[in-house]
Amino acid sequence: MKTDRADILACLRESEDYVSGQQLCDRLGVSRTAVWKVINQLKEEGYLIESASRRGYRLVESPADVYSESEIASRLHTKWAGKKLHFFEVTGSTNPDAKRFAEEGALHGTTVVADRQTAGRGRRGRSWESSAGTSIYFTIVLRPKFSPDKASMVTLVMALAVAEAISEVTGLDTGIKWPNDIVVNGKKVVGILTELSTMPEMNEIQFLVAGVGVNVNQNSAEEFSEEIRKTATSLRIESGKSVFRAALLERILSRFEEDYEIFEQTLDMSVLRERYEARLAGRDAGVQVLDPSGAYAGVSRGITDTGELVVEKENGERVLVYAGEVSVRGLYGYV
Amino acid sequence: MKTDRADILACLRESEDYVSGQQLCDRLGVSRTAVWKVINQLKEEGYLIESASRRGYRLVESPADVYSESEIASRLHTKWAGKKLHFFEVTGSTNPDAKRFAEEGALHGTTVVADRQTAGRGRRGRSWESSAGTSIYFTIVLRPKFSPDKASMVTLVMALAVAEAISEVTGLDTGIKWPNDIVVNGKKVVGILTELSTMPEMNEIQFLVAGVGVNVNQNSAEEFSEEIRKTATSLRIESGKSVFRAALLERILSRFEEDYEIFEQTLDMSVLRERYEARLAGRDAGVQVLDPSGAYAGVSRGITDTGELVVEKENGERVLVYAGEVSVRGLYGYV
Repeated sequence: MKTDRADILACLRESEDYVSGQQLCDRLGVSRTAVWKVINQLKEEGYLIESASRRGYRLVESPADVYSESEIASRLHTKWAGKKLHFFEVTGSTNPDAKRFAEEGALHGTTVVADRQTAGRGRRGRSWESSAGTSIYFTIVLRPKFSPDKASMVTLVMALAVAEAISEVTGLDTGIKWPNDIVVNGKKVVGILTELSTMPEMNEIQFLVAGVGVNVNQNSAEEFSEEIRKTATSLRIESGKSVFRAALLERILSRFEEDYEIFEQTLDMSVLRERYEARLAGRDAGVQVLDPSGAYAGVSRGITDTGELVVEKENGERVLVYAGEVSVRGLYGYV
Repeated sequence: MKTDRADILACLRESEDYVSGQQLCDRLGVSRTAVWKVINQLKEEGYLIESASRRGYRLVESPADVYSESEIASRLHTKWAGKKLHFFEVTGSTNPDAKRFAEEGALHGTTVVADRQTAGRGRRGRSWESSAGTSIYFTIVLRPKFSPDKASMVTLVMALAVAEAISEVTGLDTGIKWPNDIVVNGKKVVGILTELSTMPEMNEIQFLVAGVGVNVNQNSAEEFSEEIRKTATSLRIESGKSVFRAALLERILSRFEEDYEIFEQTLDMSVLRERYEARLAGRDAGVQVLDPSGAYAGVSRGITDTGELVVEKENGERVLVYAGEVSVRGLYGYV
């Protein structure tokens, strides 16, 4: 039934004119009664659907920011990314959910989406703000064939896909704060958390999950906790327009699928590097590297083919910065 | 209540003479009624406990191979290994259970024990035989501070602890089939499966689980599936005596705790290597290395400080064999 709903929605959305009940039946191989039931359900959920005798059905308007399994599935035309969707109105955090599905054998591309998280967290255990109806939270399960040492680059691939998708949908200029945050006007709008399960003697990845949290429709800084109010923002605050989350999620998953397949070809960032560097926050600008053995200032020059950040120190020396070892802060303009 | 049971059992076991009800109350800070209830429960489970008025209680005999949370906990004197126990009569497999507990925040040393597994598996997804009352299945959760590249050595540390514990308890001569199997008289009695959860950009381990399956009290080869009948055996088959599983598990956890702390000091096998090599199956004997790029024969000479197998080829060249890349078979005497 869920698939029928998504298919019927997709048919209606893609047609500018009326779609007859018979057409829907034929295309999906279901009965007239089934079509009629789904149409009624959709109406109840707030879709404005015109029914005209002998002409059929026409989708006049979708409810504002409807965010459901059917709505998302009806938009996706990916091969594997999000092909299998698990949608939760509310969950603790989509990463643990995705890991559980992965342990139970979930296929490559399986995606967990939640409207709200109650226990989201970022790198270093920092909590990630969460409220209903305002954010995108999703985690995708990947089953790569490559070895665990390549896994950290998946975070970069995801960051690139999300940054470009946001720019495409909202027109905002997005920057990637290497390795895994996305900033708009110097403030954070996206956090990415990748986790990996391996058998150490096998040098094989069992599965990898990449979780993404996007601040989308928060109206004002007051919707963020005090802890992050100065450093976080939302797409709506920055663009002045609310964003249809299902459409943005579709763009993210679609771009990620494409970029991930490019990455898989070479197992490095060589092909994607130029696009990544074009969005690198603070590129050719000052950064402060908080190395456990001492902080130093420098200028961020780009990334290597294997994903390390290249920082040029004041004395001209070029240093490769490995994620996890350090925290990089912008000296000007970003957090 | 569970802790009371374990404590009362431990008191009774450690005393050769009667222990008065009052002594038990004082030591555990519980009421006479609570002690009385526990004693009755233990009797119902098959413990033979003598009660004599004015003298107290005396443990005459434990039921044959009693295997329960209380029985195991009452024997453990470790600092962290198995300090928190989850005992299941039956489960799919203790590794996924342990990973679930770890995701939910289980402490270092938390151990899942099952009397029976319905979905056990080894490296390369091979299934591991399972029936009630005959085997030890446990998985320990570790939260190491070291980086993921050290994790494969934990398998070696566990193999050493298990091999020595079995020899101590049964008198059998155990060999370690590098990296993660234990053999007796050329047949497999133990399999170990280590799994790791990391955040790839952080170069940190979130948790590691090490799962162990031991064939203990199988009576005859017929109890193994045909697939493994020729290559598997049990401690009972080889020693001619049944083994009290809770006592063996105690020795394993205790030895593992000790060896793991030694390993943690240097983060390599330098201190444990000699003991490991003394048990290395096929040492100075022929092995066949099934390398994906071609099989070759050689003589196993030992391990390196970082846990690789050293194989001397026929032309005298010494090769380091990394686990996961190859499968090593004995030419003579072990599988």
